Amino acid sequence: MPTVTKKDLIDRIADQTGQKRVVVKSTVQKFLDEVILELGKGNRLEFRDFGVFELRERQPRVAQNPKTLEPVEVPAKKVVKFKVGRRMQQSLDDDESTDDAKAQVERIRVRRPS
Amino acid sequence: MPTVTKKDLIDRIADQTGQKRVVVKSTVQKFLDEVILELGKGNRLEFRDFGVFELRERQPRVAQNPKTLEPVEVPAKKVVKFKVGRRMQQSLDDDESTDDAKAQVERIRVRRPS
Repeated sequence: MPTVTKKDLIDRIADQTGQKRVVVKSTVQKFLDEVILELGKGNRLEFRDFGVFELRERQPRVAQNPKTLEPVEVPAKKVVKFKVGRRMQQSLDDDESTDDAKAQVERIRVRRPS
Repeated sequence: MPTVTKKDLIDRIADQTGQKRVVVKSTVQKFLDEVILELGKGNRLEFRDFGVFELRERQPRVAQNPKTLEPVEVPAKKVVKFKVGRRMQQSLDDDESTDDAKAQVERIRVRRPS
């Protein structure tokens, strides 16, 4: 899968807008830094059409060492969750070759029969 | 959890850099649009320190309707996966009050004993 970097996008935006690369770079970097900063404060970021970033804290818990069966304290952990926004999902779905199949098939969430 | 929007960050970046709001807004919007575009093409985006966006395709599969036990075709689905970059994870971990406990406790991934 080809990888696109920050630099690729900065170059492209500079070309499209006629802004100086260094200005675009600074804006993009500040934007990404602010996302990190806000998540660090425990805030949620919602970018309309794009998606939502939020921090989930996995609770600490006592688990069991499967070999010794001793209780093991598993500490809390911070995890970033990204949820795709509506426009992005639509845009991805539009590219999908399986659209027709999708429309015809009813989705059913399958649980184990109890 | 307080929510921060695109507008909040655009205002902040404009204040910090002295750039016009409309210019910052255009750059940020183009940046987010490019991410959507590239994911749509099936490309992976890697922003150093920040994280990686990539598309995963959930394979189509045949499941079972739990009530009727009929086979049900579940179509492929495109899903965006975000993986946090090193610096962001470090920055989040630095804020963590449980750092000391974390360092002392060995993490063990617990599986069900077979």
